[in-house]
Amino acid sequence: MEEMQKIKPYSRKIAYYETDQMGVVHHSNYIRWMEEARLDFFEQAGLPYSEIEKRGIIIPVLSASCKYQYAMRFGQRFEVTMRFPAFTGVKFHVLYEIRNPETGKLHATGESSHGFVSRDMIPIRLKKEHPDVYEIMSKYVEE
Amino acid sequence: MEEMQKIKPYSRKIAYYETDQMGVVHHSNYIRWMEEARLDFFEQAGLPYSEIEKRGIIIPVLSASCKYQYAMRFGQRFEVTMRFPAFTGVKFHVLYEIRNPETGKLHATGESSHGFVSRDMIPIRLKKEHPDVYEIMSKYVEE
Amino acid sequence: MEEMQKIKPYSRKIAYYETDQMGVVHHSNYIRWMEEARLDFFEQAGLPYSEIEKRGIIIPVLSASCKYQYAMRFGQRFEVTMRFPAFTGVKFHVLYEIRNPETGKLHATGESSHGFVSRDMIPIRLKKEHPDVYEIMSKYVEE
Amino acid sequence: MEEMQKIKPYSRKIAYYETDQMGVVHHSNYIRWMEEARLDFFEQAGLPYSEIEKRGIIIPVLSASCKYQYAMRFGQRFEVTMRFPAFTGVKFHVLYEIRNPETGKLHATGESSHGFVSRDMIPIRLKKEHPDVYEIMSKYVEE
Repeated sequence: MEEMQKIKPYSRKIAYYETDQMGVVHHSNYIRWMEEARLDFFEQAGLPYSEIEKRGIIIPVLSASCKYQYAMRFGQRFEVTMRFPAFTGVKFHVLYEIRNPETGKLHATGESSHGFVSRDMIPIRLKKEHPDVYEIMSKYVEE
Repeated sequence: MEEMQKIKPYSRKIAYYETDQMGVVHHSNYIRWMEEARLDFFEQAGLPYSEIEKRGIIIPVLSASCKYQYAMRFGQRFEVTMRFPAFTGVKFHVLYEIRNPETGKLHATGESSHGFVSRDMIPIRLKKEHPDVYEIMSKYVEE
Repeated sequence: MEEMQKIKPYSRKIAYYETDQMGVVHHSNYIRWMEEARLDFFEQAGLPYSEIEKRGIIIPVLSASCKYQYAMRFGQRFEVTMRFPAFTGVKFHVLYEIRNPETGKLHATGESSHGFVSRDMIPIRLKKEHPDVYEIMSKYVEE
Repeated sequence: MEEMQKIKPYSRKIAYYETDQMGVVHHSNYIRWMEEARLDFFEQAGLPYSEIEKRGIIIPVLSASCKYQYAMRFGQRFEVTMRFPAFTGVKFHVLYEIRNPETGKLHATGESSHGFVSRDMIPIRLKKEHPDVYEIMSKYVEE
C-alpha cells in the first residue's frame, strides 16, 4: 500500500452572481464548490474527470450535505480542503472544510458520497476493471 | 393547539439549464428546488417570504442535504412534498421528497434545518416576538 | 401557407436564488428565462425539445442579448412573450418582452438567434429533411 | 489625460455544473464570465467592487449580449479579454473576447453597457461626485 498523498486545497474568488439578496453567498453554491474541489482533486491526482468520462466511468453523487456556520461574501476567497475517510473500491466518501484562506476561519463543512458506474449506471468494480484508477484513489484515502 | 394543515406539493417543469453533460439534472439544483418548495410553503401559509424579510426576520439555512436515488431529466416535471417534524420556536427542520408527479417515482429525499434571526443575525424567540408567525408555523408541524 | 398562431406567454414566480446582493434578479437569469420561454413554446407547438433532440436535431444559440429597463425582484412573477420575426428554414430569430404580469410593466426586452444542426454541428435544411418541423415553425412566424 | 493601461485577461477552469446536456457550456454562463472579468478588472484597477458598493455606487447592467462561435467544454479553461471603447462619465461600454487560452481560439464575443447610479437608482456624475473613480476609469478607456 502506497503512502497517503496530500491534496492541495482548492481556492478561488467568490463570484458576484453567487450572492443572493441576503447579501451573502447562496447556500446552494457550497454544494457546487465541493464539486469544483472534487474535480480539481482528480486533476491533481493525474486523472482529469474528462478522461474518466472518456473511459466510460461515471462518478454520480449519491448524497451531498453541508452545514453552514458563517456566511461568506462577495469580495472574499473561499478555500476547500478535502479528506477521503473511506474507499471500498465501489463507493467513496468525501469530507470538506470550507474556509476563508485569508482569515483561516471555518465557514462550512460538507460531505458527499459517490459511486463508480458505467454509462448505463451499472456499478464498476474499480480494482478489477480499472486497477490504475483504484491505485490512484487508494493513495489519497486515510487508513 | 390547532390542527396540522396540509401543504400543497410544489411542482414545475425542469429547465434545460438545470441539466449537465451527464444528461441529467445537476445535483446542486435539488438543493434549490427544496428552497423553492420551502418559500412556496410560506406563501401558501399566508406568510410570503418577502413579507417575512420586511418584518426584519431572516431564515438562514443552517444545514441542507440530499440523497439522490434516480436521476431526473429535462422534459420531466418534479414535485416536492414537505414535512416539518420539529419546531422549537427557534429552529425548524424540514424533510423533503422529490418525485416525478407523472410516475409517482421517488427520485430524491432531502433535509434542511433553519433558524429565525434578526438582520444582525441574533436569534429571534418567535413565540414572544412574532406570535402570529409562531402560530402559523405551529399549524404545519407534526406532533 | 397556414395562418400565424398565437404563442401563450410563459410565466412563473421568481426564485430566491435568482437574486443577487443588489437585492434584485441577477441579469444572467433573464437569458435563462428566455430559454425557458423558448422551450415552452416548442412544447406548445407540439414539438417538445426532448423529442427534437431524439430526432437528432440540435438548436444551438447563435447569439443572445437583453436590455434591462427595470429590475425585477423576488416575490414577483415574470412573464415572457415571444415573437418570431424571421425564419429562413435554416436560422430563426426570436424577440422577447419580459413583463410583470400583475402590473403589465415592461422590465426587459431580449433577442436570440438559433440554427438547426445535426449532432455533429452540420446545418440542417429543415424544409427538406424535417418538413413537419418546418411546417410547425412556419405557422408561428410573422410575415 | 493619462495613458491607457492594459487590463490583464481573466481566466479560470470551466466548472462541471456550467455544462448542459448538449455536452457543452450552457450559453447563459458566458454572460456570467463577462461579469467575472469585469469585476476582476475593477480589482486590478485598485477599485474592488465591494469598495465601490460601500461608497454607495451601484453599476447596473443596462444591456448584455453574446455571440457564440464555438462551444466550450468542461476540461478547458476560458480567458476573457476586455476593452472599453467609450466612457462618458455616466455610462460605459465593454467589449469582450472569450478564448481558450491553450489554443488561442476565439469562442465568443460579447458586449455590455453600464451606468453609475446611487442606491436609489439616480445617475451619478462620476467626474464631479467621485473624481478618483472617474480618473481610474479614464485610464483604461480607448481614445
